[in-house]
This record gives sequence, structure tokens and C-alpha cells, in this order.
Amino acid sequence: VRAVTCTDGVFELVERPSPVPGPGQLVLDVHACGICGSDLHARAHADEFAATVAEVGYDGMFRSHEPVVLGHEFTGVVAEHGPRTRGFHAPGSRVVAFPLLRHGDDVHLTGLSPHADGGFAEQVVVEEAMTFAVPDHLDTDVAALTEPMAVALHAVRRSGIGKRQTAVVVGCGPVGLAVIAILKASGVRTVVASDLSAGRRALAAQCGADVLVDANTGSPFDTGASRGHVTTAAQLFELAVGSMEKLRRIPVVPWERIWKLAEVTGATTPQHPVVFECVGAPGMIERIVSSAPFRARVVVVGVCMATDRFRPGLAINKELDLRFVLGYTPGEFRETLQWLADGRVAATPLLTGRVGLGGVDDAFTALAAADRHAKILVDPRSDAVTVERC
Amino acid sequence: VRAVTCTDGVFELVERPSPVPGPGQLVLDVHACGICGSDLHARAHADEFAATVAEVGYDGMFRSHEPVVLGHEFTGVVAEHGPRTRGFHAPGSRVVAFPLLRHGDDVHLTGLSPHADGGFAEQVVVEEAMTFAVPDHLDTDVAALTEPMAVALHAVRRSGIGKRQTAVVVGCGPVGLAVIAILKASGVRTVVASDLSAGRRALAAQCGADVLVDANTGSPFDTGASRGHVTTAAQLFELAVGSMEKLRRIPVVPWERIWKLAEVTGATTPQHPVVFECVGAPGMIERIVSSAPFRARVVVVGVCMATDRFRPGLAINKELDLRFVLGYTPGEFRETLQWLADGRVAATPLLTGRVGLGGVDDAFTALAAADRHAKILVDPRSDAVTVERC
Repeated sequence: VRAVTCTDGVFELVERPSPVPGPGQLVLDVHACGICGSDLHARAHADEFAATVAEVGYDGMFRSHEPVVLGHEFTGVVAEHGPRTRGFHAPGSRVVAFPLLRHGDDVHLTGLSPHADGGFAEQVVVEEAMTFAVPDHLDTDVAALTEPMAVALHAVRRSGIGKRQTAVVVGCGPVGLAVIAILKASGVRTVVASDLSAGRRALAAQCGADVLVDANTGSPFDTGASRGHVTTAAQLFELAVGSMEKLRRIPVVPWERIWKLAEVTGATTPQHPVVFECVGAPGMIERIVSSAPFRARVVVVGVCMATDRFRPGLAINKELDLRFVLGYTPGEFRETLQWLADGRVAATPLLTGRVGLGGVDDAFTALAAADRHAKILVDPRSDAVTVERC
Repeated sequence: VRAVTCTDGVFELVERPSPVPGPGQLVLDVHACGICGSDLHARAHADEFAATVAEVGYDGMFRSHEPVVLGHEFTGVVAEHGPRTRGFHAPGSRVVAFPLLRHGDDVHLTGLSPHADGGFAEQVVVEEAMTFAVPDHLDTDVAALTEPMAVALHAVRRSGIGKRQTAVVVGCGPVGLAVIAILKASGVRTVVASDLSAGRRALAAQCGADVLVDANTGSPFDTGASRGHVTTAAQLFELAVGSMEKLRRIPVVPWERIWKLAEVTGATTPQHPVVFECVGAPGMIERIVSSAPFRARVVVVGVCMATDRFRPGLAINKELDLRFVLGYTPGEFRETLQWLADGRVAATPLLTGRVGLGGVDDAFTALAAADRHAKILVDPRSDAVTVERC
């Protein structure tokens, strides 16, 4: 089968032997596999990534010199059953799978380990017990968003946000967009989204964001706003309390008077905003800590592997809650698939590009530039060597 | 009245005019006023402290060149009523007060602002509405612990810890000791306490800690332990799951296998430990992030005003929750006083020294050395110029 390996950051399209499924495993023909931000990170900083993950107990991630087949966000069609499978999915049926693979007593991360090749290939091996049928009416490409949307569902669940609390999503890359879509699908009334890129703000609006903020230039809101210019992160947070309808009728106040603001907006208790950090760059935590209002909860979804700097004294004086989140449970993965099948989540705006196995390098380049693309799907059946718009 | 001013870090015993109470205010004769860790910090780093607090909205803290009377943990006797007071407390009655003082529309921090002199003086001004009677059978010195114990009560409340979750208290200074005492008073079954100092570990045991850990040298447990030596912070956390009784019967395992450990101890769901960071020095957050187990909640009570460094990628991979806490509500202050009056809290071990106004400088020196003392009370009625053991 054809597969794309990554060695020392260099992609190569190679021919490999067909994978042999172990006990309880299936082989899928891959129909779509999304490129994740962590794929970009792993390609550029494999050794640091592997060292951090090893420190928390998993020593199976690939090192830069080891050829690895990336890709853990895939939809496929069942091609082969291994021994001792139970026949949950007939050959030819469409499925998605939790990207973990057993090897004896070990479990490996599919698409991030040399012991579990990923979905940038014509075929991938999965665990039958962690494979879920794609409902007939659900598009194959959208089904490939199950994994990244599950990350967002998990983050929103762990945030404990209530429908009347304002969400502030900082960064509208694929993770931020997925969080916005899940927040709206969860009934959160006001979602403020902030990004440097106009293209990504437009995608945020399509995913359901109620207020868009140009984090860089202080341009006016792009949707539904009557409050003029937003110039600082502190002002951003002025918006992040109470309902937008009421806020528009009262003057801008400094966020120190957040309690007063809560009174004005008629909230019986102050509605502390919940901030979702979806950038993952060094310095973002300090920027949020220094501009967030009292008692804000900050859910850190963006992965910053570098050592970072911040001021705990400021976080203490504001009584902030920094909640770090990662991944999802099998139950959340399955539930996300159901939400997608029900049409409950505005996920399609994430799909911006498509490419064949020969275009993986081009797709990674396009994603690093970032302004035009959110999620690019790799389709092994496609001959495209440059990214096509979805 | 005699008062101790602090100017550019230098204490001076001066004679001042008697304070005049404003509307709704009382003058107290101070009988005891504790020295707080934030007093030591404010003395040494007043300008940085003031700048941080100004950034979160309070611009009234003293700068280093401004003479200030420190002291916000006091018990006193009502000496004088200002205009429009309501007579809740008869002259001569013992009270404690929430250390805030109004000035027109402004509110100032008593003992940390040039606009609200503190308790290192013969008299102090307080708000009648925020003053609470000391029950007859409660010792005056113990009543002076209301404020620091309220900090601990607030931290424990905000932690959301359950009685069957293990608490790990890192640092057994006055804040850590107060947290230990409040945790035990709250019914938390297993409290592990860690400190570099043998003297402070002994105090931790008196406050109710169940397991003591020498954070520095890896010496054996000092109380109730049969597991031998503890040499690393990671090993400390091995102990922080399930009940100690059961843990003693099973072998030491790496904390990566915490879920397994939870099974072995018979917990139906894993009991994530709650860590209380009570040191407040740079680097402590990273040390805890790097040694804490999955899903631990870290309550940051120790105030680190400097810019600090840590690895968010590690916190993400462990799904940690960093919850920053500060201060207490008036309700928590009042409740703490009641707990002390009920004898519910093992607070007396905190009281290690006493000194007169002439010995404030000596007391600060003794506290900086740290090994022998936790809380030193300043008693304006005493002539002691060096610290006497309680």
C-alpha cells in the first residue's frame, strides 16, 4: 500500500507491505484523514514532543529520525478482519476509530508512534472495540472531523461552562473553531471569538461565534456589534460578561467594575466568563492572565510545549482557574460522532482543503501559513499534489 | 499613640496622634496582631507588590518610600465609637475585624495602605459593620488567628476537596499550617504535609497532618509511616491516593499507574489528590506540575509575585487544574471565628512567639529564618524587644 512517511521532518511517498491486523483488529481503507495541529508540531519538534510525553508516562512516540506515518483523524471503510474479531462492522462499511492501537500489553498512539502507523496511507489498522459505524446520512469528510471535534467536546465539558456564561475563544485555528461549534451546539448563548486573521474570523462566524474580535488591529466587530472599536484585550473582556443584548445598552466600563456590571445587566450572580486558550504559543497564558477579569476560568486547549513565563501573583490576585485539557474519552468520541450525524454541530466550515498522498507536504505548508485553511483532508484516492479548496 | 512605621523597609517606633474614627468606624486598642508572610514580602518588595495590585484595580497600596503601619491580623478591645455607629459592640468588648477601611467611596487595605494604618500600633481604626465579637471563652491570641485561618478556609472551600481525596500540602509555613488545620477540621481524612524544616514538620503534625515528608533530604516519615524513605517529589505523590491504611499494604508503584493503584485500594473512582501550594517561591509551580499525577488539582495559595516559568505542555498532558486563590469573604471570616471559638480547628500550634512594638524588627528577622517560628504576635502592651516563645 502507498503511505507517506515522515523522517527528520521530510515527507516521502513510499510503497509498503499491506498491514496485517492482529487479534481484535481491523484494516481500513482510508477515505479521508485530517491534518492536526499536533502533526505540524510533531513534524517540527518530534524529539521535544516525545520527551514531554515520555515524562508523563508514554514512551512510544516517534523520534525525529524514526520514519513514522502520521494521521490520527480518519474515516475509512472496513477492508479486513483480524483474528478474534466479533464482526461488529461488515466489510465495506464506513467507520471512524479511536486512534489507539494495542501491542500486547502496550497501547500506542496511532499516527504518532512508529508502532502504530497513521492515516496518511491507503490503509490503517484499528481496534475493532474502539471503532464506530458512520451513520449512512453522515458525509465521510465530516465524519473525519469526529476526532478534532471530540477534543473540543472534551474541553467544553471539562470547562463546566453554563449556557448563560460568556465564552471567549482566543485563537480560531481548527481547535478554536471546533470549540466554537461545540459551545454553540451546547447552547452557550454568547461566544466571543478572537483571531489575528480575517479569514479565520470569517470561519468562526460560520461556526456560530456571536462576536468577532480582531485581536491584532482593533478593527470593528465583524458581526452583530454596535459598540464600535475593540482595541485591547482588556476591552475584549468587558464584553465577556452578561448577555450581549443588555451589554449593548450600557456604557463601556473598566473590567475592574465587573461586579457592578453584573448588577447593571441584572445578573443575580456575576457571570464569570470562561476563556478557551486555543493558540498554544508561548506568552499566551500571561496575556490572558494579565487581561482576564476576576474569577475567570481559563481552559487551556492550545498545546504549548515550550517552557513558558507568567505571573502567578496576578493570577492569585484575580483568583483565576487555569484548567488544562487534553484528548477525550471513548464515550466523548462516540457522542461527538452522534452530534455530527444529528447535524447539531456547525462543523463543515472547518473543511477548507483536500489533497492526495502526494500533496501532504504542500498541505503542511499551506497550514503553516494559516490564513486560508483550517482543516485539510488527505484523501489517498485523490491524485492532487497541491491543495484543492473544499 | 505608639505605632511602628515601615519606610523603605526600616521599622521605627513613633508617637502619633490618636486616630479619629470616621462615620461607622470604631477605634480599637490592639491586644495582639500577627505578622503575615505578606508583611515580610511587602517590606522587602513594596513597589513590585503595589504595582501588581494596581494592575488588578487597587491603587492604594503603600510604596516603599511611604511610611506605613503594617499589621492586618489583629484582636482588639473597643475604645471609641465614631459618628453614625450602631453600637453593636460595647466599649471594652473584644473584637476582630475584616481589614478593610472606607474613605468616602474608596476602600483601603488596612495595614497595607498609607490610607489605613494597621495593627502594629496601640490603636487601629476598623469598620463597625465588618467587626465581629470574640466569644468569651476564646483566647485573645487565638482570635488573632481569625484572619490567616480565614485565608486557609477560603482556599480549602475553593479547592472543592472531598473528605476522601488526599490533600498534599507543600510548604508548612503559617499558610500551610493553617491549611492543614482547616483540612482536618473539614474532615479530610488524609493530609500529607511536606517541608524542608524539621521544626515546621513538627508543627504540621500538631496541626493534624497525617503524613510528614522531608522535602529536602528524603528522611523517613516522621509519623505513622511504615513505607521507608521518601526521596523524590514523585514518590510523595505515590502516597497521595486512596487511604493510607490500604496503601501501606501494597508495594510502591510509579505514579503513572495511579489508575491501577486506585483499583488496588478499592476506590470505585480514582481519587485525584488536591495539592496546596503554600510556598510561593518561583519554580514551585513547575516543580508541582512536573511531579503531580494525572488530573491533580493544584490550589495555589502561596503568593509568588515574580514572573515564573513552567511547562504548559506538561500540565496539558496531565490535565492539571491550577486554581489560584486569595483572601476570603466576610462570611468566611465570620465562620472561621466561629470554628476557632468551637475549638474545631487545631490553630494554637501556629502561635510560636510574642513581642512588643519595640521588637517588630527582631520578629521579622526571626520569621525570615523560619525554622523555629510560624506566627509571631505583636502585643502593644508588652515591653519585649526580642521575640519570646509562646
